[in-house]
Amino acid sequence: MKKNIKLTIEYDGTNYSGWQRQKHSITIQQKLEEAISSITGEYCEVIGSSRTDAGVHARGFVGNFITKSNVPPAKFKYAINSKLPKDIVIRSSEEVPLEFHSRFDSKGKKYIYTVLNREEPPTIQRNYVYHFSKKLDVNSMRQGSKFFIGAHEFDSFYKKSGSTVKSTLRTIYYCDVEAENDLIQFTVIGSGFLYNMVRIMVGTLIEVGIGKIEPRDIEKILLAKNREKAGKSLPPQGLCLHEVLY
Amino acid sequence: MKKNIKLTIEYDGTNYSGWQRQKHSITIQQKLEEAISSITGEYCEVIGSSRTDAGVHARGFVGNFITKSNVPPAKFKYAINSKLPKDIVIRSSEEVPLEFHSRFDSKGKKYIYTVLNREEPPTIQRNYVYHFSKKLDVNSMRQGSKFFIGAHEFDSFYKKSGSTVKSTLRTIYYCDVEAENDLIQFTVIGSGFLYNMVRIMVGTLIEVGIGKIEPRDIEKILLAKNREKAGKSLPPQGLCLHEVLY
Repeated sequence: MKKNIKLTIEYDGTNYSGWQRQKHSITIQQKLEEAISSITGEYCEVIGSSRTDAGVHARGFVGNFITKSNVPPAKFKYAINSKLPKDIVIRSSEEVPLEFHSRFDSKGKKYIYTVLNREEPPTIQRNYVYHFSKKLDVNSMRQGSKFFIGAHEFDSFYKKSGSTVKSTLRTIYYCDVEAENDLIQFTVIGSGFLYNMVRIMVGTLIEVGIGKIEPRDIEKILLAKNREKAGKSLPPQGLCLHEVLY
Repeated sequence: MKKNIKLTIEYDGTNYSGWQRQKHSITIQQKLEEAISSITGEYCEVIGSSRTDAGVHARGFVGNFITKSNVPPAKFKYAINSKLPKDIVIRSSEEVPLEFHSRFDSKGKKYIYTVLNREEPPTIQRNYVYHFSKKLDVNSMRQGSKFFIGAHEFDSFYKKSGSTVKSTLRTIYYCDVEAENDLIQFTVIGSGFLYNMVRIMVGTLIEVGIGKIEPRDIEKILLAKNREKAGKSLPPQGLCLHEVLY
């Protein structure tokens, strides 16, 4: 009897070339598939909810795999964790209908991007934040973030890659910027995200935060549908996939 | 003209054998003294406010050094940071009176110990938390923590080491336990701390958290002045020196 197992996965992406299997570098998908195969004795492919880039982290990545193994679904978590390196952990495992597909069935995702806004570079947080030394105006950034909410064509906010995109229309349900001491967190929940989209959104809000552009310019940049109008793409280590919605 | 320079230092202790110089292993004091010497051209000894153990972190460690260099005191921060590895950073540098001694003049210290209380081991936080999988009763731990407040002889809460201690009397000004999601933070401010004292205090509160002992047993354990009555010393990576008071 085939079963479909849904996994919720947390990982520190520092030492990986992202989620997706690659020929010449180590990825999270590879480590996970090796761990599962060593338990089930079958070839295993884990379908991932998205492709996180090298250095990006996850607290609630979702994947699923089909197996004939008779390991009880909720026990897979323990079995797989015993085989994984210490920077990847399964938070939960459960059986789902055979037709469940972690990517196609996803209704949205929640990302958080963290900026350390102080003069000195980070030590303890160095793999988990983007360091920006010039003082940022968090209120302006928050105002700017609100222009992302709604359905927009995000041509200005994504990096064209090898694969073609049918549509650049994405819906942002929630977007906010909050500061606690010198940490600024950008939280976004949306129907889906284009390549580098979150990192460019925050890169553009940084320009708002230093007063280079106005909060309402975000709207103009969206309408321009021109990548050159937006800010730069920030580095991966500040980004974390917090949750995938179904 | 000799000057006394006070430094506030942040570091990720993961890759070091603690603060204090040692013959056969790499320490934070050594890295810092090497960085300063390369700037001033003098032999440099940095006096530290305390000796943090291997794996312990700091956000506000304080040190001071005497120099004849004419680098402006506030500029030392930038000069030293340009020579330090990425897991050590100077947060501030300032001139203080020649008689200032970062250890003898310290009036107190603030430590935070962080416990990750969930079933699965940590990934992203693995070098910065102690993982405890059994559910802890945070309210009981908080009640227990209050018995530490005040002046006590901490014989039950320290590890005897090579150096002898004149007195085990220490005053705890503030002690609390707070939870946010699955992270439990133990915060303590005291006049001074004996070897392994914070780690044994939290180790004993863990026994309160699992119901092995009652919150008020903390008082009895203090009065017993017997190391065997207290809980075990928790591992170093959950501990962070947040501030040194003067």
